[in-house]
Amino acid sequence: MTIPVAEERASRADPGHGEQASLRTWLRLLACTTLVEREVRGRLRDRFDTTLPRFDVLAQLDAASREPGLPLTMTELSRRLMVSNGNLTALVERLVQEGLVNRDTSPDDRRTQIVSLTPAGKKSLDTMTPEHQQWIASLFSDLTSSERKSLFELLGKLRSSVQDSLSEDRGT
Amino acid sequence: MTIPVAEERASRADPGHGEQASLRTWLRLLACTTLVEREVRGRLRDRFDTTLPRFDVLAQLDAASREPGLPLTMTELSRRLMVSNGNLTALVERLVQEGLVNRDTSPDDRRTQIVSLTPAGKKSLDTMTPEHQQWIASLFSDLTSSERKSLFELLGKLRSSVQDSLSEDRGT
Repeated sequence: MTIPVAEERASRADPGHGEQASLRTWLRLLACTTLVEREVRGRLRDRFDTTLPRFDVLAQLDAASREPGLPLTMTELSRRLMVSNGNLTALVERLVQEGLVNRDTSPDDRRTQIVSLTPAGKKSLDTMTPEHQQWIASLFSDLTSSERKSLFELLGKLRSSVQDSLSEDRGT
Repeated sequence: MTIPVAEERASRADPGHGEQASLRTWLRLLACTTLVEREVRGRLRDRFDTTLPRFDVLAQLDAASREPGLPLTMTELSRRLMVSNGNLTALVERLVQEGLVNRDTSPDDRRTQIVSLTPAGKKSLDTMTPEHQQWIASLFSDLTSSERKSLFELLGKLRSSVQDSLSEDRGT
């Protein structure tokens, strides 16, 4: 949910003040994300009859398959997707039933579940990723490449700032 | 859900290409929003025993009360919050039962519902907004005021870009 009116109000009330400036930037960030996400959800549904969480799981498993190292556990998958293990379990269960995802017990630890894409899952993802990438490029197309670069870098700073603030609060 | 690994992959694969650059910027935008939103949800729950959608409805009704013009309809409220009318109806119903929100039939049109904050709703919101604003300021605190300003402006450009792209697609 976003609060465009509150953004305008924060903007008018005190544009120079740090707290107000942070708040209006956050509200605009949230509005951008909501707009893009809603569009992507709609297109995934209309074009591929699928949902964003399903697409995200497949994309994440595909990315993990290119990494060196250990296979992906359910716990690590839920961390990367920033969703709870509980929500993810039902979704992965459906993808397993549809033959798009493999889920196995780890040979090293019976409590650990390993997840990966099946060939059918990879094929399903590969039909979607080029269009998904074009949708995003089209939504971002009014930004020059230098503006996109600046935005990317500022968002990197913001991500670090958020992570720093969270670590401090937790005393780590 | 976010795809930090895919972001890194997009970044390594072809940093100069427009589509890849847009995709990795989108994934970073989504990661930032998810991090901040999750934190705000957690703090609203821990500090005020409330949820983000409830907070957003109260904040939006408060903002609307400061605007000149007509009272807010359920349809306009759902447009501003970017949520479906169906999802909103149940939430507003609970807020009405708790005495935080008024919902009345419009005197001009019996099919139109007008919503507003009650004094108790305003009081509840006023206990939360200063802390909410401080949380956001603290999460954004590593950005200089000039970086925050640039980010705000670039997000404004992005929002226009997304809106332009959507209007073109719909032929308006």
